[in-house]
Amino acid sequence: MEVTRKNYKDCLNTVYSAIEEADFLAIDGEFSGISDGPNVSALTNGLDTPEERYTKLKKHSMDFLLFQFGLCTFTYDQTKSKYITKPFNFYIFPKPFNRTSPDIKFICQSSSIDFLASQGFDFNKVFCHGIPYLNQEQEAQLREQTEERRNQHANGVGTPSYISPSSSKGPAHVPEEHRDFINRVIEKVEALFANSEKTLDLEPCTGFQRKLIYQTLNWKFPKGLHVETMETEKKERYIQVSKVDEEERRRREQQKLEREQEELNDAVGFSRVIHAISKSGKLVVGHNMLLDVMHTIHQFYCPLPEDLLDFKEVTMCVFPRLLDTKLMASTQPFKELITNTSLAELEKQLKESPFKSPQVGTAEGFPSYNTAQEQLHEAGYDAYITGLCFISMANYLGSFLTPPKAYISPRSKLIEPFFNKLFLMRIIDIPYLNITGPDLQPKRDHVLYVTFPKEWKTSDLYQLFSAFGNIQVSWIDDTSAFVSLSQTDQVQIAMNTSRYAESYRIQTYAEYIQGKQQEKEKLVQTAKTWGEDSWVKSHYTTSTGSSGFVYPRGLRKRSISPVQGEQEGGGDALITDGWSHYSYPDSTCNKKMKTDDASGQSNAEAVESKTSEGWLKTVGSSDSAAFTPIPDEEEIPEGTDPANNAEGTVTWQQAPTVHGRKGQKNKKKKSEAAETTPSLFEVPEVW
Amino acid sequence: MEVTRKNYKDCLNTVYSAIEEADFLAIDGEFSGISDGPNVSALTNGLDTPEERYTKLKKHSMDFLLFQFGLCTFTYDQTKSKYITKPFNFYIFPKPFNRTSPDIKFICQSSSIDFLASQGFDFNKVFCHGIPYLNQEQEAQLREQTEERRNQHANGVGTPSYISPSSSKGPAHVPEEHRDFINRVIEKVEALFANSEKTLDLEPCTGFQRKLIYQTLNWKFPKGLHVETMETEKKERYIQVSKVDEEERRRREQQKLEREQEELNDAVGFSRVIHAISKSGKLVVGHNMLLDVMHTIHQFYCPLPEDLLDFKEVTMCVFPRLLDTKLMASTQPFKELITNTSLAELEKQLKESPFKSPQVGTAEGFPSYNTAQEQLHEAGYDAYITGLCFISMANYLGSFLTPPKAYISPRSKLIEPFFNKLFLMRIIDIPYLNITGPDLQPKRDHVLYVTFPKEWKTSDLYQLFSAFGNIQVSWIDDTSAFVSLSQTDQVQIAMNTSRYAESYRIQTYAEYIQGKQQEKEKLVQTAKTWGEDSWVKSHYTTSTGSSGFVYPRGLRKRSISPVQGEQEGGGDALITDGWSHYSYPDSTCNKKMKTDDASGQSNAEAVESKTSEGWLKTVGSSDSAAFTPIPDEEEIPEGTDPANNAEGTVTWQQAPTVHGRKGQKNKKKKSEAAETTPSLFEVPEVW
Repeated sequence: MEVTRKNYKDCLNTVYSAIEEADFLAIDGEFSGISDGPNVSALTNGLDTPEERYTKLKKHSMDFLLFQFGLCTFTYDQTKSKYITKPFNFYIFPKPFNRTSPDIKFICQSSSIDFLASQGFDFNKVFCHGIPYLNQEQEAQLREQTEERRNQHANGVGTPSYISPSSSKGPAHVPEEHRDFINRVIEKVEALFANSEKTLDLEPCTGFQRKLIYQTLNWKFPKGLHVETMETEKKERYIQVSKVDEEERRRREQQKLEREQEELNDAVGFSRVIHAISKSGKLVVGHNMLLDVMHTIHQFYCPLPEDLLDFKEVTMCVFPRLLDTKLMASTQPFKELITNTSLAELEKQLKESPFKSPQVGTAEGFPSYNTAQEQLHEAGYDAYITGLCFISMANYLGSFLTPPKAYISPRSKLIEPFFNKLFLMRIIDIPYLNITGPDLQPKRDHVLYVTFPKEWKTSDLYQLFSAFGNIQVSWIDDTSAFVSLSQTDQVQIAMNTSRYAESYRIQTYAEYIQGKQQEKEKLVQTAKTWGEDSWVKSHYTTSTGSSGFVYPRGLRKRSISPVQGEQEGGGDALITDGWSHYSYPDSTCNKKMKTDDASGQSNAEAVESKTSEGWLKTVGSSDSAAFTPIPDEEEIPEGTDPANNAEGTVTWQQAPTVHGRKGQKNKKKKSEAAETTPSLFEVPEVW
Repeated sequence: MEVTRKNYKDCLNTVYSAIEEADFLAIDGEFSGISDGPNVSALTNGLDTPEERYTKLKKHSMDFLLFQFGLCTFTYDQTKSKYITKPFNFYIFPKPFNRTSPDIKFICQSSSIDFLASQGFDFNKVFCHGIPYLNQEQEAQLREQTEERRNQHANGVGTPSYISPSSSKGPAHVPEEHRDFINRVIEKVEALFANSEKTLDLEPCTGFQRKLIYQTLNWKFPKGLHVETMETEKKERYIQVSKVDEEERRRREQQKLEREQEELNDAVGFSRVIHAISKSGKLVVGHNMLLDVMHTIHQFYCPLPEDLLDFKEVTMCVFPRLLDTKLMASTQPFKELITNTSLAELEKQLKESPFKSPQVGTAEGFPSYNTAQEQLHEAGYDAYITGLCFISMANYLGSFLTPPKAYISPRSKLIEPFFNKLFLMRIIDIPYLNITGPDLQPKRDHVLYVTFPKEWKTSDLYQLFSAFGNIQVSWIDDTSAFVSLSQTDQVQIAMNTSRYAESYRIQTYAEYIQGKQQEKEKLVQTAKTWGEDSWVKSHYTTSTGSSGFVYPRGLRKRSISPVQGEQEGGGDALITDGWSHYSYPDSTCNKKMKTDDASGQSNAEAVESKTSEGWLKTVGSSDSAAFTPIPDEEEIPEGTDPANNAEGTVTWQQAPTVHGRKGQKNKKKKSEAAETTPSLFEVPEVW
């Protein structure tokens, strides 16, 4: 269902009840751009820390506009054994509410706009008929303003219940140059009292003059008048004065109050849909959804916090349960079966064996999507497809149960390991951002930080390290890159060799991090000297914090409705994670799953005890390419790789040998499975 | 005529010949926003210096996109005694040319977008079918890149004439992990030579792999092959290998060369129209055109220079002859007859006596505009209307001649005084930016700089200065404003009174300027310490330079085609200004104009000798309101005036008494006119 400013109010209740009845929700956003940074490969370095990535995305992506929001609700119909869907496609635009409301500026990136244009995106629907919105602070401000104005007027007309003690009852100060004008108005109003007309329209005038008129009339004629600002067709504002008795006056005041209230709700606009999603506490599914989540919070709740931990906290307030289908598809048992996790390809692969297309039907009154005719990059359609992918993958997990189940509910414990972990694009060794816990801290002692002249290309780095076998290059900027060696013991050799080099310089990853930390401290000190200058907002301010995990912090004062209490089905108890104690035989053989009945360990403990091990260690060599960041053309337009001045983009090289220690990991695994085959159903132990 | 990417190439010759045959051109631009500054009243302070205004506009307006460009050519048909018009309405969008070309980001301001939407603007035409463009540097870069790539390929295929001495003829270095892939390619090509097929399509692969393929094939098979990158429907790139004999190979190379050349011209796109306008040297007319000129240069030529003098220089290169109808309408003899200079109102007023609607017809094949049905804010229509206004005003000047002339050519000396002076919005005492000379330097010794708590409103300032009669308030920011007193001798009284004030502080304008100068010097010193940090780019860096006028400077190296040599009709001689020696009797009585035959003084001399007098002195008291900055709602959306938290915007107050010295001015005038009536046809003497 397409929703614009024109039909938004009529649709709102339909949206509300669709959310209320749903078993889960799928969302997707379309933006006016992805990154205003120099180029994508610099923006998404393969060895970013989660803090760095968050800071970059916040800095380089939040000034774009989320201008189309897709919501698809999925409700399971037990009797028909299928999901009923209600897809919505909202067009969003920050049309200024009035002349004092914020005049939002947003950036458009021509490649993104051009891409959407090529997909048949209707920009007129966005810009001419988009639904407005306010974040929580803007909403509060507007409500305050309205209240204040109401009080001012009320004081003027002298309704005793509204008079504030400080309000002056004397005549308004009319500047010299406006006296004639105001005197003419008074004469006209006096004439109105004398004649049989009911209303008097004054000529259009400035806001200042209108203010003078209000003040003067309220003082001169405390009773019997209703004064109101109207607008001509040409948008010129003028004052209408009406003769009224006391009852009529009150009735009109009341009407005005209600109208103002409604206008205010209209201004809050699309944010009300997000509030409803948030309050429902339902599982919200998205594909590669980090940017969607960031934009949604930034646009409809509050500017994003500086600090990643604060962002996680806010996210849990707004979306208490998230699931990212790209992360799910990139994880065991799916990652071996799914070669391409872009949404379109994923959807195709999940139609084939061993997966099954889910049974879905569109609710009555909703246009049904045809997945054969792709309508990708319409947010409503993408949300719909994302939901389908989730159902297929969830149901596939049911095939491991004894006895197998064909339908797995979104409330099933089988799904929980995927909750609140958002896919991190193109980070080599950290697959996801963990919203409800500490992030993975992979060892990077095989990584070198190399600086060199800006003429250097990827091939020069290959040349330099040709003695070390396979390397992996992650460009940082024109003159620096991370180089991952295949063996950690090569690091010292490389360091020794480079000691006398003049054109380039090598540091270990640890030295690099230390240097950044020092840089950060220097900056903070300088900032103290220089005050709040904007240049202080460095990338690095929050990126290198290595202090222990302190989430959840004490909630700070923030006007976000906490919805965690509204979670259904047992709240915290549900989040207890039994997943890491499962072990699976080779998924291509007989699929059986046994639960570790002895599992009494809470998820929190699991995190505590295993974080220092890092995620990487759990990846066997057969899976080494799993998170190799092959650019996903669907998600981010290819940037200009500094390594390539010819015609394409040099993609990162695969590293066929891996730093993991498979044997060690298998030893560690508390597996009860009979078969310990080389291709175990491997789940990162940190879960 | 609507011109988009679809019909652009077909229209280009029509556009060229329209420009070539025209007597003058009118232009107009529509932008994605006006100002990203805090609010318009802070952006356009009534007492800005021209340097400050330029710096502010550059800083706060250039990140918007000029996305619709209107051009209307006017050609006088002697036989029919009327102008023939050719209006064009170009939609502009920086569609990236290829994946290595700049990915432009631009800002949209929701109020501007919403305003255009309400006028029926078609955003889909812009974003889906807009014509691309490149500025001069981007064009040069792209040509270089193409040339480089061509040489690389040429070296590979071994065409002797293209081989550079340094090109390596050895085998390409193929990284380990690509060897299998490349070997398979070689096998396939060898098979191609053995079989009867003519071409071989390789599978899609990465840019890096394609580069390896090119290098390998060029080395292995120096003859008999043509290798080319193609694109599938899904935009995947693959390589096509064809067996060719030498002649065929050359033919194909030639075709490819031509295709590349054409693609390159397509990428330069709309900039070619601006180049043609520039080269023509024709008079270019606009309404309130400073932003149009700035955007046009910024988008299609080069990033705007830091310094105002450099901007003037660049402007003269791009548009050697400009005329601003808003400035013309605000100047004698028009300003007494025209009450509202917004384009729509001006057009209406110029249809009434004493003006005459110009005789115009639309050229065949062009859709004709109907001025009764307003299509304002479509750039093509606005350009058309602007041209009509110019003709009406120009012809009106002819009525002062003896004998009167009904038609005044755009080459007439009568028009020259209005050349290259661009209207400055809302500056109280400097009506225009003088592109070809020094700017006016009005005395501001009746102006006070006042700082106060941020709670203060305009009314508080009125209160504070209530003893001084009329004042004029120009807000700078939340806590400061300029207050203009009606009499200079009040300044000292105000200063004395304020000596012991605690809540506010008063400085003279001179003290304020001195303070800013010191601040600037401090910043420059700090900048030296801190290097090229962006925060150094202060507003004030170029705003207070009071050194003498040094234009024209020695031309710097800048790749802009100098077109001044192409001016028609006598070049410099034409620019000699006889205007200030004219004097006119009361325009409501018998209109006669006599030229000062003795005038041998050049315009430059006039400037030299009169600049110090300032423009203000030439305005008689009857004209005092002429440049009072009444907000022109058509041009800039009303901002949030800090003085007003109620419902409208407080407009600046008129100052009925004036600082001018009328008698003195009349004495100075070398008038030969018999009648020296009080309402002389007053032209700023600086002209």
